[in-house]
Amino acid sequence: MNTCELIIKKRNGGVLTESEIGYLIGGYVSGEIPDYQISALLMAIYFRGMNDAETLYLTREMIKSGDTLDLSAISGVKVDKHSTGGVGDKTSLVLCPLLAASGVKLAKMSGRGLGHTGGTIDKLESFPGFSTGIDGERFIQQVDKIGFAIAGQTKRLVPADKMLYALRDVTGTVDIIPLIVSSIMSKKLASGADIIALDVKCGSGAFMKSFEDAKTLAEKMVAVGKGAGKKTFAVISDMDEPLGCAVGNALEVKEAIDTLRGEGPAELHELCMELAGEVLLSAGICQTEREAEESLLKSLSDGSALRKLAEMVKAQGGDERAVFDTSLLPKAPVTHELISTQTGFVESINAEGVGRVCIHLGGGRMTKDSKIDLSVGVVLHKKVGDCVSAGESIATIHAADAASAAEAERLLTECYRLGDKRSEKSGIVRAVIK
Amino acid sequence: MNTCELIIKKRNGGVLTESEIGYLIGGYVSGEIPDYQISALLMAIYFRGMNDAETLYLTREMIKSGDTLDLSAISGVKVDKHSTGGVGDKTSLVLCPLLAASGVKLAKMSGRGLGHTGGTIDKLESFPGFSTGIDGERFIQQVDKIGFAIAGQTKRLVPADKMLYALRDVTGTVDIIPLIVSSIMSKKLASGADIIALDVKCGSGAFMKSFEDAKTLAEKMVAVGKGAGKKTFAVISDMDEPLGCAVGNALEVKEAIDTLRGEGPAELHELCMELAGEVLLSAGICQTEREAEESLLKSLSDGSALRKLAEMVKAQGGDERAVFDTSLLPKAPVTHELISTQTGFVESINAEGVGRVCIHLGGGRMTKDSKIDLSVGVVLHKKVGDCVSAGESIATIHAADAASAAEAERLLTECYRLGDKRSEKSGIVRAVIK
Repeated sequence: MNTCELIIKKRNGGVLTESEIGYLIGGYVSGEIPDYQISALLMAIYFRGMNDAETLYLTREMIKSGDTLDLSAISGVKVDKHSTGGVGDKTSLVLCPLLAASGVKLAKMSGRGLGHTGGTIDKLESFPGFSTGIDGERFIQQVDKIGFAIAGQTKRLVPADKMLYALRDVTGTVDIIPLIVSSIMSKKLASGADIIALDVKCGSGAFMKSFEDAKTLAEKMVAVGKGAGKKTFAVISDMDEPLGCAVGNALEVKEAIDTLRGEGPAELHELCMELAGEVLLSAGICQTEREAEESLLKSLSDGSALRKLAEMVKAQGGDERAVFDTSLLPKAPVTHELISTQTGFVESINAEGVGRVCIHLGGGRMTKDSKIDLSVGVVLHKKVGDCVSAGESIATIHAADAASAAEAERLLTECYRLGDKRSEKSGIVRAVIK
Repeated sequence: MNTCELIIKKRNGGVLTESEIGYLIGGYVSGEIPDYQISALLMAIYFRGMNDAETLYLTREMIKSGDTLDLSAISGVKVDKHSTGGVGDKTSLVLCPLLAASGVKLAKMSGRGLGHTGGTIDKLESFPGFSTGIDGERFIQQVDKIGFAIAGQTKRLVPADKMLYALRDVTGTVDIIPLIVSSIMSKKLASGADIIALDVKCGSGAFMKSFEDAKTLAEKMVAVGKGAGKKTFAVISDMDEPLGCAVGNALEVKEAIDTLRGEGPAELHELCMELAGEVLLSAGICQTEREAEESLLKSLSDGSALRKLAEMVKAQGGDERAVFDTSLLPKAPVTHELISTQTGFVESINAEGVGRVCIHLGGGRMTKDSKIDLSVGVVLHKKVGDCVSAGESIATIHAADAASAAEAERLLTECYRLGDKRSEKSGIVRAVIK
C-alpha cells in the first residue's frame, strides 16, 4: 500500500477499508509513516469525514497499538463511564458509588483537569492521603471487593491515541467527530468493561456547542461501542451553564457528597439517576425504569451509596472521615460573596467563563504541569431562571487571598447575564441515545 | 503568531494575511515550523483555496527564501518562458532562437524530463558536447551577446519551493492550483525577466485535463505575475494529443530545427508564432500583430532564427554543425514502422501513453536518477483527424533494439483510436490570457 495514495483517496471522498486503516495506524505507531503524512490525512478527514465502519476500524486499530485491560477476575457486570467534559462535572463522584451500591462493578480510569474543565482525579485528591496511583492487580482486587476504583490512566493503553492526539493538537485537527469518537472509544473499549455509559455534554460550556453536534457524536460513539460488541448508551446532558452549583475541586467533592446524601442540586441528582438507571437496565439488574429508580433512591436514602464512597476513599489511602464530615476537606482561607447590583432573572451563566474563574483562583490548570489549589473555587447560589434581588448574593468565591478573590469577583460578574424575563430552562437530560 | 491557529483559520475558510504567510513560509524554511504542520495547512488549502492576494504573498515569501537573478547587465528586454509540460513539447527550442533573432533576450533555466513529459535540457544534450552547467557570469554574458542561454536550474533559487514540493509530493497536495501557481511563478519571478510568457497545456496529456482548470491556472499565474510588477501573459494550448509529430529527445530537436526552417508541423509553428508574437508586442518591439508576424516569418525564412540556435549551441560547447545537418544528432539503431491494420480516421491519440512508450524505449525517466537514451522515441505520421488506410504507416518507432521496438509497437497501437468519422479538431491555441 502507498500512504500518499491513501491520503488522496480520503481527500477525494473515498472510504478507507479495514486493511488500509490498519496499514496507516500500524505504520504510524511503528514510525514507518511520518507525522507529516498523517497530519495531511487527518486534515482530509476533517473535510471528508469517516463513516461508522471506518470509525470502528480506526478505533480497533488504535486499541491494537497497546495493552488492553483484563477484567475477567472481577465478578458481576463491569461498567465504564465517560464524560466529554464540562464545568462543575462531578458526576463520576456520585455515579460510581451509587452504582457500586447496586452491585455494579466500575474499574474507572480518569484524567486530570486541563483548561476550563476539571478532572476526577484532582477532585478525589481533596481527600487527604488519597492516591490514584494504584497498580493493576490491586486495582482489579479493589473493584471486585468494593465495587469500584478510580485510577489514573496507564500509558500502555492505546499509545496510538496519545500520538494522534499530540499531532491533532498542533495541526488544527482536534474537532473532528470520527477522531474524537475513536479517541474516546478506543480507551473505553481497551478498558474491558461490558457496558459503556457515555455522558455527552452539550452547550456553551462543552466541546460540542450545538445539540446536533452532540447528538452526532453520541450516535457515532454508541455505534462504535455496539460495533465492538459492547452494550453502549449515551446521555446528552446540558452544559450551557455549569453542572450543579460548585466549581472547584474540594467544593465539587462536597457537592457530590451532598448529592449522595440526597441533598444535592436537582439537576445533578437527575443526571446521575438517568445514567445509573440506564446502567441498571443494561446490566439486567433491574427490569423496569421504575424498579431502577426505586433501587437507586434506596441506596441514597439508606446511606449505602455514601458508604461505598467512603470504602473506596479508604481503600485508596484517603481519609474516609471527610466523607461524613466535609469540614475535613481542604478549605480556602478567604470567602467572598458576589453581591448583585441588579434585580432580575438569571438569563445565562457562561460556563467556560466560570471555569476560567476557577483557573484564575488557582484551582485549574493552564498547562499539564501547573500545580493546583484544591480548596478554591466558586459556589453559585443563582442558576439560569432564578430570580435575583439587588443586594443578594449570587455566588460565594473561595480564594487563597483577598486579591485573587477581588479579581474573581470581577470575572464572575461578567459570566452572569441578568434580564427581565424568566428564561425557559430545558432539563439537564436532553436525550438518551441507545 | 501561532501556527496551529493559522492552520485552523485557513481550514475554516479564512484568508491569510501577508504577515501570516510570511510567518508560515519563513518558519518552515528556517526549520522552526515542522513538516507536519505545513502538510496539514497544505491539505486545508486543497479544500479552501487561496485568493489572488494570498497566492501573490505566498509567491513573494517563497522568492525571499533564496537568491534572485540580477539580469541588469543584459541590455534590452528580458523574457522568460514556462510550459506546464506535455508530450512532444519542444516549443522552447523553437521559441528562444526565434525571439533572439528579433533582439529579445532570454535567460532561460530549464529542467530535465520526469515521467511522461520530457525536459528541454535533456533534449539539448542531443547536441554532442552541449553543456547546461554554465555558471552565473558566463550565463549572463552569453544572453547579452547571443540573445539567449539555456541552463539547468540553480539550487539557490527558491529553496522553499523545493521543500514544499517534496512535502506536497508525499502528502497528496500536488494538484492545488494556488500552490502550482506559486511554485512556477516564484521561480519565474526570481529569474529576473521583464516579461513572463506562459504556455499552459490543457488536455488528456497535460496536468490540467479540462479547459476550465487550465484557464483558472493561467489566470492566476498572470495575476501573480502582474501583481509582482511583470508583464505576464499565458497561452492555453492543446495537449489532447502530443505536440507536433516527434516524441523523444533527439527526434524533437530535429523537429524543432525543421520548424526553425519553416518546415515543421503546422501546430508547432502556430503555437511558437503565437507565443513569440505576444512577446514582441509586450516588449514594444512590434506595435501590431501583423508587424510581429511578418518580423517572425522573416527570421524563419532568412535563416536568422536557425543561426541563433547554432550560435547558442556553439557557445554552450555543443557541435553546432548538427543544427544544419541533423544526421549528426544521436540516431537509434533500429527503426520500425507501426502499420495500421484498419482504415479510418484518427479519433484520438493518448498523449500520456505516447510519453510512456518513449519511457519504455529508454528515452524518458521514471526516477530522477534514471539514465536516458537520447536517440530513441517515436515520430507520428498520423495525428487526430488524419485519414489512415490499412497497410499505411501510422508512426515510426526509433529503438535501441528489436525487442523494445516490438513492445513499443504494442503500446503505441493502444494509444491510437480510429473511427469512421473525421473528428473536429480544435486549434492548438485555445485561448490567450493577458
